[in-house]
Amino acid sequence: MKIFIAQQNYHIGNFNLNRDKMILAVEEGRKRGAELVVFSELSVCGYPPRDFLEFDDFIQQAENTIHEIAAHSHGIGIVVGCPTRNPQKEGKDLLNSALLLYNGAVQGVANKSLLPNYDVFDEYRYFEPASSWNCIDFLGKRLAITICEDIWNLGDNPLYRICPMDELMKQSPDIMINISASPFDYDHDEDRKEVMRLNVKKYGLPMVYCNAVGAQTELVFDGGSLVCADNAVIAHEMKYFEEDHLLVDMENLVGGVSNPNHAEQHIMTSDMRVAKTEDPDTIVAYLTKENNMSQVKSALVLGIRDYFTKMGFTKAILGSSGGIDSAVVLALAVEALGKDNVTAVLMPSGFSSSHSVDDAVALSKNLGNPYHVVPIQPVYEALLSTLDPLFAGTAFGLAEENMQSRSRGNILMAIANKFGHVLLNTSNKSELATGYGTLYGDMAGGLSVLGDLYKTQVYALAHLLNKGGEMIPGNIITKAPSAELRPNQKDSDSLPDYDLLDRMLYLYIERRKDPADIIASGFDEQLVQRVLKLVNASEYKRNQFCPIIRVSTKAFGVGRRFPIVAKYLS
Amino acid sequence: MKIFIAQQNYHIGNFNLNRDKMILAVEEGRKRGAELVVFSELSVCGYPPRDFLEFDDFIQQAENTIHEIAAHSHGIGIVVGCPTRNPQKEGKDLLNSALLLYNGAVQGVANKSLLPNYDVFDEYRYFEPASSWNCIDFLGKRLAITICEDIWNLGDNPLYRICPMDELMKQSPDIMINISASPFDYDHDEDRKEVMRLNVKKYGLPMVYCNAVGAQTELVFDGGSLVCADNAVIAHEMKYFEEDHLLVDMENLVGGVSNPNHAEQHIMTSDMRVAKTEDPDTIVAYLTKENNMSQVKSALVLGIRDYFTKMGFTKAILGSSGGIDSAVVLALAVEALGKDNVTAVLMPSGFSSSHSVDDAVALSKNLGNPYHVVPIQPVYEALLSTLDPLFAGTAFGLAEENMQSRSRGNILMAIANKFGHVLLNTSNKSELATGYGTLYGDMAGGLSVLGDLYKTQVYALAHLLNKGGEMIPGNIITKAPSAELRPNQKDSDSLPDYDLLDRMLYLYIERRKDPADIIASGFDEQLVQRVLKLVNASEYKRNQFCPIIRVSTKAFGVGRRFPIVAKYLS
Repeated sequence: MKIFIAQQNYHIGNFNLNRDKMILAVEEGRKRGAELVVFSELSVCGYPPRDFLEFDDFIQQAENTIHEIAAHSHGIGIVVGCPTRNPQKEGKDLLNSALLLYNGAVQGVANKSLLPNYDVFDEYRYFEPASSWNCIDFLGKRLAITICEDIWNLGDNPLYRICPMDELMKQSPDIMINISASPFDYDHDEDRKEVMRLNVKKYGLPMVYCNAVGAQTELVFDGGSLVCADNAVIAHEMKYFEEDHLLVDMENLVGGVSNPNHAEQHIMTSDMRVAKTEDPDTIVAYLTKENNMSQVKSALVLGIRDYFTKMGFTKAILGSSGGIDSAVVLALAVEALGKDNVTAVLMPSGFSSSHSVDDAVALSKNLGNPYHVVPIQPVYEALLSTLDPLFAGTAFGLAEENMQSRSRGNILMAIANKFGHVLLNTSNKSELATGYGTLYGDMAGGLSVLGDLYKTQVYALAHLLNKGGEMIPGNIITKAPSAELRPNQKDSDSLPDYDLLDRMLYLYIERRKDPADIIASGFDEQLVQRVLKLVNASEYKRNQFCPIIRVSTKAFGVGRRFPIVAKYLS
Repeated sequence: MKIFIAQQNYHIGNFNLNRDKMILAVEEGRKRGAELVVFSELSVCGYPPRDFLEFDDFIQQAENTIHEIAAHSHGIGIVVGCPTRNPQKEGKDLLNSALLLYNGAVQGVANKSLLPNYDVFDEYRYFEPASSWNCIDFLGKRLAITICEDIWNLGDNPLYRICPMDELMKQSPDIMINISASPFDYDHDEDRKEVMRLNVKKYGLPMVYCNAVGAQTELVFDGGSLVCADNAVIAHEMKYFEEDHLLVDMENLVGGVSNPNHAEQHIMTSDMRVAKTEDPDTIVAYLTKENNMSQVKSALVLGIRDYFTKMGFTKAILGSSGGIDSAVVLALAVEALGKDNVTAVLMPSGFSSSHSVDDAVALSKNLGNPYHVVPIQPVYEALLSTLDPLFAGTAFGLAEENMQSRSRGNILMAIANKFGHVLLNTSNKSELATGYGTLYGDMAGGLSVLGDLYKTQVYALAHLLNKGGEMIPGNIITKAPSAELRPNQKDSDSLPDYDLLDRMLYLYIERRKDPADIIASGFDEQLVQRVLKLVNASEYKRNQFCPIIRVSTKAFGVGRRFPIVAKYLS
């Protein structure tokens, strides 16, 4: 059977755009001799549609779109992902389905059994899990169609009680097809390939795996769709971070890109949900691996670009402090949006070091983007004098530091509002974790580019960006990090060194280690308690933060849900 | 059997505080002759614990607390809610359990079957549903113990495939006990009583229902625990919005507070999740019903008080504009925290009407709270002159309006940071829905008091507050709403009249009606499309908003999850 795999970038709720894109692929597949075209999970409406699914009109539009696509299925099969109505009155009203369209009609339906409801996923909020399983016959082949999570329930501590492929195997299928919307993190591509191999080894059937691509607010779908021959060798690996279309003849699969390092590993899939090391000595090396950083860079560029494209914006603005975080965001934004579309605003204060403006100017000259210098002193001083009747006699402190940061936030938002820019946030994960940032000040912005990267990773990314020649001036990379909100301030006045801090944060956030475990792995007890308390006590700040492009197994935001009012490790 | 029902207010993760509170109740029950003491769902750790449940240490602390409480169970039974470990390796690792403690040990376990995963609930994120059911024998009686949602699956379109009480009835129990953490909305007390009656009618057994009380960030648990005799008459109804303890003799239940209006209704429980009217002509009357508003007032006062108490704060600050929203928040905060603990800041600008400051001063004189007058003109003018090189030649517009609002936000946050206040937000649900507010300006704050009340409801609450004598000056209630950010501005320049707007918003938000349905019920088509587009296009603003005390069936925040980057009705 000749299968055309369509790895596409959808726009959530934009049924017409998604439909047109799918019909183009069907016609391309037809031209190239395909018998079946396969799209990704919930391709009709885009993934994740979230509470749009609670509107009958949304489901109706999805159904209408299916009919429009089915009109193009004469003589060619189409596997498409779509929410459908649960025919049984017991249970939730919707199913997460794969429909086989052929000759103008729906010829078969497979419903998702295993509904991920951890981290960023909320599928059980909307869908009833399948409780019966049937293969779908098509052109003399019996297809076992599953949806994303359905094939991940391997290992010795499975998350779900059932395994849908076990059920489908009772009907002796010929080919496994899995349609997915599986978001990127910097280990996930290897996990996915391993899950393909484990499934093929277990069931002895070839597998077609079609993933989505493109960013949906915080989630980046990285593509990398796969075809695995029945000898468990990956025969085809499609592009990452871009749309791709591939015709495969399932009768002539030649395994070509097998990775012997993985083929012989027996990784438990229940471990595939978490980041990969817990050895405190190797964490930073793991976090900053060049191969991971290279993927992270692609994910962030796609994340920025799709946010702007799909929201209908073209121009970004950001505060360029002469520090490393804003330098990396600026470089990524210039790559994503073009240098003319990214405006840097340099906002020195009385506490700014002499080189801060020079470094930021050098950066924008390297990148070629427009920049403005807007000193904050007049605004800050107006705030001080306005508040003098109330503040007289008090010492300079956190309030005054935050006032400077918020003066910058105001200036940036004013320019953004005036000229129709979106403010890019420049906070990193180490700062967000510890609450080392000012609400409505440096925490302002519409999209966080680095909020899922620890400070040590931001440095690694800066080095990677400079590999082809200096983009980020050396001085920005080598100087000690500082918020420059009081004389001679350094981050290290308030926080442990980032190399130390990031390792503790990683164990707590990505690995969900208990305090006792972190201490036992060699960190100072009081320091661990202080850091975890900072993390837990700043939940209220992160709760008001913008969406963060997710690149790790555990990002702040929708995938990490803690009570704000609580008393635990705090 | 003599049962002591302990309706208590827990602090999430504060195991010692919760334990001490429960042990006090056990000893009080023992003194009063109780044979069994009943606590609410997840009482040991507080509800909802959210991702704390992913930490082994958290579960371990819950287990330790159970042992400490069990040490007080000699000669007296205790039903306590606690997360427990799933003994089966298949499925999620935790169960949401009710434990029966007696004579120092765990004598029985009942696990929750129906895990709510809609609106504000995420239970399937953490827990495996029960798949076997057993009554627990205690002192010659057979107890059918269920947890919250377990008894709500009635009606003709059930959300779940099974009904745990049907299973437990096979073992012929004598008494039904349900332990809950069921949050308030302004219809929910009647729903709960109806569900009790429907269960008692269906199973013919008396029922004890123990609910939690107290606010947990955005959720307010309203108590109102119930005892229902086997004739389906409510025999006892415990206090609302405060802790309460009650001893009942199950052999001598006398039905006393039956409500004939409800006893004969056959409400489907699947309809109990949504607000109660969809007749466009009666929506405003429904939203502003005095009985509902009176409960809402109690919920908001408890919500404010518990936020501060449990976070360890005492002092609040807010911007007092002379408008109705800030006036109502100020009055509620004074009731919750005491007049000396709430500081009002009056921040007139060049566009403020002459009476704005006078009205706000009169309000604070009525309430007796401290206030400051801090004009924003110097800060706003410093922003204008700082940005003049960039803005020269552009017309006054939205950017300048937002700059004023953010100047106020900066001043409020500076005072809050300097003196350790928490900023109370004053936005209402009509504004949040339509995006009629400034990020980091009037949308700033740590807790939103009115974010789940439409503007028409804010007026109704103002009238209620004034019932015992003028608290809110009449001029604040009668003048036309205005943001006062440009000359002679009125809300009605940008938005439909609130009486019209709120009805459309209610149908869309609370009732999840499709645009076609809303139009069909008599609203102008273009106006509906404009309003829904405003709602969907301002998701990015609400995403950065603080927690909102929830009083309706559908509040913005954790219970309403929409993609930010999307194209649907927008």
